[in-house]
Amino acid sequence: MPHVAEQRTQYAGLFTRPLPADIDPSTTTLGGRPALELRPATPDPAGEDLLLYFHGGGFVVGSARATAHLPATLLRHLYGRAVSLDYRLAPEYAFPAAPDDCLAAYRELLDSGVDPRRLVLAGDSAGAALAVVTMARARDAGLPMPAAAVLFSPVADLTLSGASVRIKDGTDPFFTPTDLRWLYDQYLSGADAAAPGASPVFADLTGLPPLLIQAGSSELLLDDAVRLAGRAAADEVPVTLEVAPRQPHVYQLDTASATAAAALDRAGRFLAARLHDGQEAA
Amino acid sequence: MPHVAEQRTQYAGLFTRPLPADIDPSTTTLGGRPALELRPATPDPAGEDLLLYFHGGGFVVGSARATAHLPATLLRHLYGRAVSLDYRLAPEYAFPAAPDDCLAAYRELLDSGVDPRRLVLAGDSAGAALAVVTMARARDAGLPMPAAAVLFSPVADLTLSGASVRIKDGTDPFFTPTDLRWLYDQYLSGADAAAPGASPVFADLTGLPPLLIQAGSSELLLDDAVRLAGRAAADEVPVTLEVAPRQPHVYQLDTASATAAAALDRAGRFLAARLHDGQEAA
Repeated sequence: MPHVAEQRTQYAGLFTRPLPADIDPSTTTLGGRPALELRPATPDPAGEDLLLYFHGGGFVVGSARATAHLPATLLRHLYGRAVSLDYRLAPEYAFPAAPDDCLAAYRELLDSGVDPRRLVLAGDSAGAALAVVTMARARDAGLPMPAAAVLFSPVADLTLSGASVRIKDGTDPFFTPTDLRWLYDQYLSGADAAAPGASPVFADLTGLPPLLIQAGSSELLLDDAVRLAGRAAADEVPVTLEVAPRQPHVYQLDTASATAAAALDRAGRFLAARLHDGQEAA
Repeated sequence: MPHVAEQRTQYAGLFTRPLPADIDPSTTTLGGRPALELRPATPDPAGEDLLLYFHGGGFVVGSARATAHLPATLLRHLYGRAVSLDYRLAPEYAFPAAPDDCLAAYRELLDSGVDPRRLVLAGDSAGAALAVVTMARARDAGLPMPAAAVLFSPVADLTLSGASVRIKDGTDPFFTPTDLRWLYDQYLSGADAAAPGASPVFADLTGLPPLLIQAGSSELLLDDAVRLAGRAAADEVPVTLEVAPRQPHVYQLDTASATAAAALDRAGRFLAARLHDGQEAA
């Protein structure tokens, strides 16, 4: 494995996309952490929606800015703004630093008066795991749930027990099982990989809001997505799972791909329907 | 277990719904079996879509007419007609009589000149298993695939190995594991429950068209739906899974339910998009 600093530079170079021209980014803080706020250049005066975003990067790399193209694109379907959080990364800050930051950010939004019915969560990869864990911890703390959440290629099982970890080894263009094990080990730093606060497939998801899960069939993490959908469904959570064939991990990041654009459009419409239409899920 | 004849009468009484007023039913034959043809009372002159439907009933009960409310409702989104097949039932006719009838029906439609790009499949429960098996067998026989398929609460694992068979025992208002075992035993008549031609979760689904799978979270068969989605995804099939919380097996049959109406509307739009828009799946 290359040094962590080098991995972070590589990741930022590979995955950072220009933000849409109609989005104004600005720096802010949330839950004691730096964050990137994204507002439409021409804001809707009635815009009260808030999208809280948790970026991916295996708990080790990535940043609020790197995959901010995703919440910025989802924002087209909402009336309001998005905030992408720079939660603490491993190995400098091990589990549960990142979920603690995410929960603090969620709590600060509610404390500042954001209506949970106008609040949605989204995340990619490790950030999708953090979104699910944050909702489960918020529920346990008696906080209200957001209106919905979108999970792009979620990490959900840090024990790597999904069949796709073996079946898709060699097909996944980004990861080997060894890569994933190394990233998760940095994050866990000896904590139990099967702890519900680390691996959402082992968590009680009762009470979570409607979830849209999108994954690609070429992923080592395909079965994380499938089993997370199964876990949510068993716990009476409205859930929709969409798997796009021959697509890689977080394929929504490919700005040249019609498949990616269509997936982001469906995800934006999913959130908008739960925010604005009172439409039921699944 | 009551006598099979009594079960069939009970099932017909419980699940037969009036057909929509704008649908003209007529009897026909397909693949050597009786079938029910459903046409709009005011047919679209350009209507070339064909929906082939396989009813549910655990391979033992049910009929082309009983759950015909489902294809009749899907038809609102299509330009054309639906045909619901009276495939042979167990125990009088054991596996593989039913899949043989379904494949013969599919083949006759193609032989009669139906354009596979205008052909879609759907089924509920055991009929959804038959739809998947029919597509896999058609693929193996070198026949073209339909444009898409919708699967309502699919039976997918006749070995009953899904966790929901235990977890949802007592929650499912229709079935106990013993009920399912009895039905499947009538059908299999000693054949291997894990045979790919009987249990689609163990089949190679490569090459199948886009699938929409809908299930309710109260079902013993919930994990049949989840694992069928996982199997299809692993085999590079575009797949969408929707699980509606606290809904029973084939909840789409409840004509008084807004949840059921919304699910059927999504299913109809899913088929229409694959038939008419060239829209990509998932």
